[in-house]
Amino acid sequence: MTVVEYDERIVVVDVGLRFPTPEMVGIDLVLPDFTYLRERAREIEAIVVTHGHEDHLGALPWVLRELASAPHSPGLPPVYGGALTMAMARSKIEEHKLRDVQLEEVQAGETLELGPFSLELVHMTHSIPDSSAVALGTDLGTVLMTGDYKFDQTPVDGPPADVSRLAELGREGVLLLCGDSTNVDREGFSPSESVVGPHLEEVFARCEGRILVTSFASNIHRVQQVVDAAQALERKVALVGRSMRKNVGIGRTLGHIEIPEGMLVGAREIEDFPDERIVIISTGSQGEPLSALRRMAYRDHPQVELKAGDTVVFSATPVPGNERAVNETIDRLYHIGCDVVTPRDAPVHASGHGYAEEVKLMLNLVKPRYVMPFHGDFKRLRLHAQLAEAVGVAPEDIFEGDNGLPLELDERGARFGAREQAGMIFVDGVEIGELADAALRDRRMLSADGIFIVVVTIAEQDGSSVADPEVIFRGVPFLDQADELVEEIRLTVESSLQRAAGEEIREVDLLQQALHDDLAQLVYDRLRRRPMVLPVVVEV
Amino acid sequence: MTVVEYDERIVVVDVGLRFPTPEMVGIDLVLPDFTYLRERAREIEAIVVTHGHEDHLGALPWVLRELASAPHSPGLPPVYGGALTMAMARSKIEEHKLRDVQLEEVQAGETLELGPFSLELVHMTHSIPDSSAVALGTDLGTVLMTGDYKFDQTPVDGPPADVSRLAELGREGVLLLCGDSTNVDREGFSPSESVVGPHLEEVFARCEGRILVTSFASNIHRVQQVVDAAQALERKVALVGRSMRKNVGIGRTLGHIEIPEGMLVGAREIEDFPDERIVIISTGSQGEPLSALRRMAYRDHPQVELKAGDTVVFSATPVPGNERAVNETIDRLYHIGCDVVTPRDAPVHASGHGYAEEVKLMLNLVKPRYVMPFHGDFKRLRLHAQLAEAVGVAPEDIFEGDNGLPLELDERGARFGAREQAGMIFVDGVEIGELADAALRDRRMLSADGIFIVVVTIAEQDGSSVADPEVIFRGVPFLDQADELVEEIRLTVESSLQRAAGEEIREVDLLQQALHDDLAQLVYDRLRRRPMVLPVVVEV
Repeated sequence: MTVVEYDERIVVVDVGLRFPTPEMVGIDLVLPDFTYLRERAREIEAIVVTHGHEDHLGALPWVLRELASAPHSPGLPPVYGGALTMAMARSKIEEHKLRDVQLEEVQAGETLELGPFSLELVHMTHSIPDSSAVALGTDLGTVLMTGDYKFDQTPVDGPPADVSRLAELGREGVLLLCGDSTNVDREGFSPSESVVGPHLEEVFARCEGRILVTSFASNIHRVQQVVDAAQALERKVALVGRSMRKNVGIGRTLGHIEIPEGMLVGAREIEDFPDERIVIISTGSQGEPLSALRRMAYRDHPQVELKAGDTVVFSATPVPGNERAVNETIDRLYHIGCDVVTPRDAPVHASGHGYAEEVKLMLNLVKPRYVMPFHGDFKRLRLHAQLAEAVGVAPEDIFEGDNGLPLELDERGARFGAREQAGMIFVDGVEIGELADAALRDRRMLSADGIFIVVVTIAEQDGSSVADPEVIFRGVPFLDQADELVEEIRLTVESSLQRAAGEEIREVDLLQQALHDDLAQLVYDRLRRRPMVLPVVVEV
Repeated sequence: MTVVEYDERIVVVDVGLRFPTPEMVGIDLVLPDFTYLRERAREIEAIVVTHGHEDHLGALPWVLRELASAPHSPGLPPVYGGALTMAMARSKIEEHKLRDVQLEEVQAGETLELGPFSLELVHMTHSIPDSSAVALGTDLGTVLMTGDYKFDQTPVDGPPADVSRLAELGREGVLLLCGDSTNVDREGFSPSESVVGPHLEEVFARCEGRILVTSFASNIHRVQQVVDAAQALERKVALVGRSMRKNVGIGRTLGHIEIPEGMLVGAREIEDFPDERIVIISTGSQGEPLSALRRMAYRDHPQVELKAGDTVVFSATPVPGNERAVNETIDRLYHIGCDVVTPRDAPVHASGHGYAEEVKLMLNLVKPRYVMPFHGDFKRLRLHAQLAEAVGVAPEDIFEGDNGLPLELDERGARFGAREQAGMIFVDGVEIGELADAALRDRRMLSADGIFIVVVTIAEQDGSSVADPEVIFRGVPFLDQADELVEEIRLTVESSLQRAAGEEIREVDLLQQALHDDLAQLVYDRLRRRPMVLPVVVEV
């Protein structure tokens, strides 16, 4: 999520989310911290979305909900983007039951005035149709944000990226270029999406049994190419996985994908056709726990049962961090007896992000005064900066930023300003918020060593124990010696209480603290682990 | 860990461990299930270890401890292996304070009689010195287990793999070959370890600041090559990380590594030398949480502070599953301003496992009657089987096995027998055992959504509540609405107790069950999450 501010008016470009790492125990989604926007809700002119991927669009419902509830909210800002992007936004808005959201389709090339900004979308190519760069004009100059892009000269559908318009903007003068850094570490040019189709057909031609292809559900052009290859080999196509069916539905409505009449079969009908007449297109290319493919690999899918002789084609590469989940899925497929084809075996995937030469081409077309690499880890921001230097941008005009670090531009030049609040907030179930560090820390502790709960009941009058302490534990391993330890805990409670009585400690909080210290030490001595120890003192 | 059994006598080959996956919450190590051995402690003739890596040697102390405590234990079986392997075993035995362990160094080529078996180690090359294949002869024929190997024709130290002896064994007739499958999916021959040295020197020559090289501490030949490259460029060497210092120490004692007098400097002395005169060799190539490099990357190492201008060379590739941890480490290094060189950037690593052509060469040298692919996931076992078919082994003579599935060989042929108990057991702190599924499930539940504890104190006489219920929660997020929920929980407790009283339920377990059902429902309704809900009823 990027905030562009001029003359006290704001345009927000992209509102993405990310998926949690294993350390974020129990967290479902990670959103950008909205605090800065919330405090400036009245200043927001518009939200612009470059394309429909989750890491650019996924946080939209949460941002809107947050802005709707902001103090002095003037109502929600309009949301701009391409037709497919807005269709995907609409589907999210409806899922979240949000009202009064103004979604505005923008054609690439048309210019809108948004307060002190002019807005233009420039058509780009990427692994989802309807991707754009965003040009925001101001009195001071133009900021160009590339969004995610590659320079695909032979896209499967629609025109190639609008290099003419980029060149024109470059000639007119671009103040700042913020460019995608995802593949800056890959040399040369990325292969065109169009090369994937013939390779898929080659792979399909060698298969005698059923074929299952898994890819990102939003990669509509890939789905089209799978459909084309299936058609060439006279196979029917079944779509499996909720998001696959949904995105193909949206893509067909908007004319981005064409599936011949009678070619689609339902997941329950797959068994009605001979194996060599079926291609299944499925979600799960990232090994996601509840995805269709993962469930099939673990023989736990309600409709599709994979078997020896089936071929599973991974028409996608694992997003960094998903390698293990993908490998586990592949291994289960081998265990079933399936054959597996990945991009390592055949060119059945093409990345949607341009390689180093494309990043240089972008820099040369746009000829920006200043460069701020975007969308990559620190390593890729650095490599992007090196590419900018290689095409002649002065090192002092390149800004390797960080989340929350604003770049300030004016007549005198460009520099980083003071840090603003930024970072991650978590979605846990349906609630969002800055999940207190304490809660995450507690969860890590609970998950590492479990918990001991010791309930101590004392008389209000004199603090004497009026019932045997209750000792409960969860997630604590190997307690063959449990009875003994429970007995020791009871004895320790007695002696703690006696010592507390001797020191005239009667306040429940202080008693609990004293008990905690003694019991935690005992448990550590016995188990050499540090489960959470939670004494509860009840006065009766 | 492999058990070879003949005439009711057992030789155990390798006793490895693995490291836990994130789902194994709070687990430190994963060992093979020893039940089968424990029940047959009296039949164990010997333990043989092919080489000193953790996944072949690491479980030795645990196995021995288990056997020592087995019923009717006749004392511990002797342990056989090469000199370095036994030195590493000794260090583990001492750490675990085990006594009366008989460690026997075996020279490659010598033959020992162990009950009905003859034992011979065949010299192989791998990423640790002193690696061997194990040939176990019986009246029925010879079983050859390759251990981990590559056919390195120009090893850094010592002779190449003993292909002559393998060929001789092949001519004499090998009944069963159990071969390493790690790199069966890589085409051609693996590069020699010797090619790494010159590339390291090339990379070093380009560096102006300090150089840090990280690799596996047991890869003594790699350390030697780093030392040689450092010497060529007149840099001193510092060893950082406990296991690096320990393994280099053992390697020097046994003559596997030579470091010139005066070349080593202590970690604290690094700052005394100019940056361009220092090479640091460090653990942490896998991004391990507490490793030296990881701590440096997070600016948390007591002796070494990395800075802009330093170059960090990863002379290792991530073991599958460690990619994310390695990438995080690399990104932190970029953030500090270090330059980073990985095997993707320059050939600064060579795998210790042979590629497909080497696996075929092994099959052709040994000409086994039967083949059982070893040491790989299901995918690699399958690919190994395909390679065996490609060199002419009949499909019915190839056995793709699974842990616990014994292969039975006799005069009539070979076949899988009935499954034996096998699998994983967990080490949690210092305790080992089959961590009850319940404990792991509890931990997952605790880590996902936290825990609610509700303490209810009732009078023994009539079951009436004698104190306000205590409500405690941990790891539960976003409780702005906590007060309200706590109040609702108290009300629910009241109504549950009343209903229980009406139904004359007085037994504490039943009361707790009733409270659990009502409270879990309430918490789910309010939070849409399922934290663990633990009602504790105390009678006074």
